Amino acid sequence: MRVKEFGEEDPRRVIHSFKVGLALTMVSLFYYFKPLYDGFGVNAIWAVLTVVVVFEFSVGATLGKGLNRMVATFVAGGFGIGAHHLASLSRPTGEPILIAAFVFIIAAVVTFTRFFPKVKARYDYGFNIFILTFSLVSVSGYRDSQVWTMAHERLSTILVGSSTAVIVCVVVYPVWIGEELHNLVVTNIENLGEFLVGFGDAESNNNGKTLGEDHKSVLASKSNEENMANLARWEPGHGRFRLQHPWKQYLKIGTLARECAYKVDALSSYLNPHVQPVDEMGSRVEAACRELSTECGRVLKELALATRKMKRPKPADAMVASSRAAADNLKLVLDTSKWDRQRLVELVPIAALAAVLLEIAETTERIADAV
Amino acid sequence: MRVKEFGEEDPRRVIHSFKVGLALTMVSLFYYFKPLYDGFGVNAIWAVLTVVVVFEFSVGATLGKGLNRMVATFVAGGFGIGAHHLASLSRPTGEPILIAAFVFIIAAVVTFTRFFPKVKARYDYGFNIFILTFSLVSVSGYRDSQVWTMAHERLSTILVGSSTAVIVCVVVYPVWIGEELHNLVVTNIENLGEFLVGFGDAESNNNGKTLGEDHKSVLASKSNEENMANLARWEPGHGRFRLQHPWKQYLKIGTLARECAYKVDALSSYLNPHVQPVDEMGSRVEAACRELSTECGRVLKELALATRKMKRPKPADAMVASSRAAADNLKLVLDTSKWDRQRLVELVPIAALAAVLLEIAETTERIADAV
Repeated sequence: MRVKEFGEEDPRRVIHSFKVGLALTMVSLFYYFKPLYDGFGVNAIWAVLTVVVVFEFSVGATLGKGLNRMVATFVAGGFGIGAHHLASLSRPTGEPILIAAFVFIIAAVVTFTRFFPKVKARYDYGFNIFILTFSLVSVSGYRDSQVWTMAHERLSTILVGSSTAVIVCVVVYPVWIGEELHNLVVTNIENLGEFLVGFGDAESNNNGKTLGEDHKSVLASKSNEENMANLARWEPGHGRFRLQHPWKQYLKIGTLARECAYKVDALSSYLNPHVQPVDEMGSRVEAACRELSTECGRVLKELALATRKMKRPKPADAMVASSRAAADNLKLVLDTSKWDRQRLVELVPIAALAAVLLEIAETTERIADAV
Repeated sequence: MRVKEFGEEDPRRVIHSFKVGLALTMVSLFYYFKPLYDGFGVNAIWAVLTVVVVFEFSVGATLGKGLNRMVATFVAGGFGIGAHHLASLSRPTGEPILIAAFVFIIAAVVTFTRFFPKVKARYDYGFNIFILTFSLVSVSGYRDSQVWTMAHERLSTILVGSSTAVIVCVVVYPVWIGEELHNLVVTNIENLGEFLVGFGDAESNNNGKTLGEDHKSVLASKSNEENMANLARWEPGHGRFRLQHPWKQYLKIGTLARECAYKVDALSSYLNPHVQPVDEMGSRVEAACRELSTECGRVLKELALATRKMKRPKPADAMVASSRAAADNLKLVLDTSKWDRQRLVELVPIAALAAVLLEIAETTERIADAV
């Protein structure tokens, strides 16, 4: 059954679904019990709404939305009351015009602010809620004058809803987006290393073993990583991750890994028209290429392992020593080769291979420096 | 002033902000005028809320959200009334337990469904609203028995809010996401073409002119394009775009363009250690490379131009004839060269250059086929 497989593929999906059900049922009980109902009034429904809207898969996303929603509601409630007060000072006919003008101006200005990339990345939801609450408070203000009550009720119900969502999200099998990011970046580097080691191997065996396509996913990971890093900054310290964990560093490493992946991708295109050793000279170059690929792969895998365990890796210099030696060796082989009778066109693929590998070696060193 | 520049960079941002203000003020007037107020009741506030939540930058996004919200509210309202009716058949003590069970089950099942990629891409918002409305209707059901009234009011206010948002979005300077996607893909191909032509040029001039970084943006455009194609499918036919416009085709072309960009990126890394013609033989290879680059760039630019004007481009064969000839020429030059005294290491960059260019030529042909 497809649904079952989908759930088994990542059991956290099932757990998350139950968590949402749990939080929502809990908030519904708030609404049901009479004393609480009297305390919150009809607006208690906002608590239910808040849980549905705020509850996200990861702790970072839920916390970010919850905090955005609470702060924005608080501030916008204040502005709304102020606008209502200002409007009520004017004559009765002027009041709705003033309110409409306020709503128009606030909505336009805040909507414009949302376009700024920095705002969009972290506070988009809060600014949206700001417009929402401001409109609700100031517009409903001229219907009944219980504007204070309304603002207060809306704020307290949203506090209850957000807290419920956050607490359930953190207490029951939490999914930390920071950990996800950490694993994603590490897995990416690992995949690249795996591919390079496999490439070195396949070259020697020439058994036509197909190499994985795992490195392809690295190519398009940019927006995903950026989004995760933004969310991770909302999360409190937990486990091996401190509060001020350098999330930006992950983006830097991720960018380098992507650059490396572009080159690895170029490498993989030399696999199909398989490079055949053309003569003894060709085999020598090929062997040097293979060795370089394997060494680069090893360095990347070692880096990934150290990062996964959150240990300080060996100094970059020590780590890349072997890959650097392999690169020098390849250069030497190329340098000393006399390839007289070789027609140039046959030589192009293997020379390109060598060039790409030398570049990968360079990028590998830069990754080693950055980790 | 930074804010002013930001607005001038894309004036549609300013227009969009005013559009949101306009729609919100219009809906507030609904709430203000007494007859409408009597018709909609306190729930009229849902109309305001709907406008804030549904109004997006592009027509596709606004329509998608509006339709999702309307349909989900309608269906979930039905389910909610059904659940309430079922629960009311049991004994009074059993009613809240049944309701809580329903809410839990529906929330868990629907939340799980949202994980499926196809659902997530187009109906995520609708499924969220489904949980929301179902909870609101069934939970508030056991408070007052006006469950029908509430469901009906919620649906009609949401209809008013969504319609207002959609109408303002379409009528006042609409931003069609389909057009954006079209332009993005075309611009990407154009940038690649520009770069290749420039590369051919810079090689001949050797004047150290730096080539643009425009092709870099192509590398990471994947998730952006996919998102836009999903939204574009919500849009009705407009201008040169019919309703059944083949948006998926854009993704295919986009993917090919990205593949090409990876290779162009590899090409650009040969720019810094500038390829110097080492001797007469080297110059011949270099000239052939330069020609191939220029020809590929021309093909891409021609393709982009035809696509931009939405004309049927020339048959792919005719278009790539010149680039194919240039590729054959490069192969011939490589083939006939006798590069005896040349040390291999100096030859590597130019050979790699040739290999990459030959691959770019191939990818160009595939793009020409796909357009």
